[in-house]
Amino acid sequence: GVFKPMRQKDVKVVKSVMTRAITVKPDTSVEEVAKIIIQNNVNHLPVVDDEGRLVGIVTSWDIAKAVAMGKMGKVKDVMTRKVITALPDEPVESAARKMEKHNISALPVVDAKMRVLGLVTSEDLSKLLAR
Amino acid sequence: GVFKPMRQKDVKVVKSVMTRAITVKPDTSVEEVAKIIIQNNVNHLPVVDDEGRLVGIVTSWDIAKAVAMGKMGKVKDVMTRKVITALPDEPVESAARKMEKHNISALPVVDAKMRVLGLVTSEDLSKLLAR
Ligand SMILES: C[S@@+](CC[C@H](N)C(=O)[O-])C[C@H]1O[C@@H](n2cnc3c(N)ncnc32)[C@H](O)[C@@H]1O
Repeated sequence: GVFKPMRQKDVKVVKSVMTRAITVKPDTSVEEVAKIIIQNNVNHLPVVDDEGRLVGIVTSWDIAKAVAMGKMGKVKDVMTRKVITALPDEPVESAARKMEKHNISALPVVDAKMRVLGLVTSEDLSKLLAR
Repeated sequence: GVFKPMRQKDVKVVKSVMTRAITVKPDTSVEEVAKIIIQNNVNHLPVVDDEGRLVGIVTSWDIAKAVAMGKMGKVKDVMTRKVITALPDEPVESAARKMEKHNISALPVVDAKMRVLGLVTSEDLSKLLAR
């Protein structure tokens, strides 16, 4: 009979849709973070230590939280420490499931040493639908 | 020959994925908006007039903008007035394209009289990928 090669399933992975992450340090002030968010037109900033390793995430939602509580302060006072991450070769469907499960809209993309390689957001994923 | 019915293409529309919109008025204070955002665990609030018609949108990003500028104030001072919207029967792909084109992460869903029926976000759309 005719040889039919198995059709390779087109697996789209996180690194093909992720964007550059703008990072901040734990001691950055909330006001400075607000400026970085506006200047770069982003919502999510991974927080890294001096070795560039992920220690948290701070978002415009956390700035709203600081305003709601009536106290500014530093990134380390408002950031989320238990960060849900993605790997560069993870399928986009897996990233989408993590966001859905945790009710979040972005995942820092990290290497095995927890160094930040990029960021994948629900905006990046919903663009796949727009194709 | 065998009759083969044309396969109906499964068109997913905005109303099947939209969620309830929490709305505010133009005279609501920025601090109050921050509290509403945190209490409801959302990022986007359509702004409506006394007749319930859409006049703007305010997001946690706009709260960050107020912090960056160092002045709180009212919703009408920080909201975006030219709002990109979706219709309930619009295909989700169309909503995804609008978000991509305008670099935004949510669209208020409105009726013909610009009354707010709901909200569709990039988080809602990326959930379709998670299936
Ligand atoms: C739970 S979400 C709720 C609002 C909305 N769903 C969103 O994603 O912005 C807001 C919180 O999620 C946190 N967050 C965002 N991305 C995260 C991630 N990848 N891992 C853990 N927490 C994250 C933020 O620091 C913020 O405190």
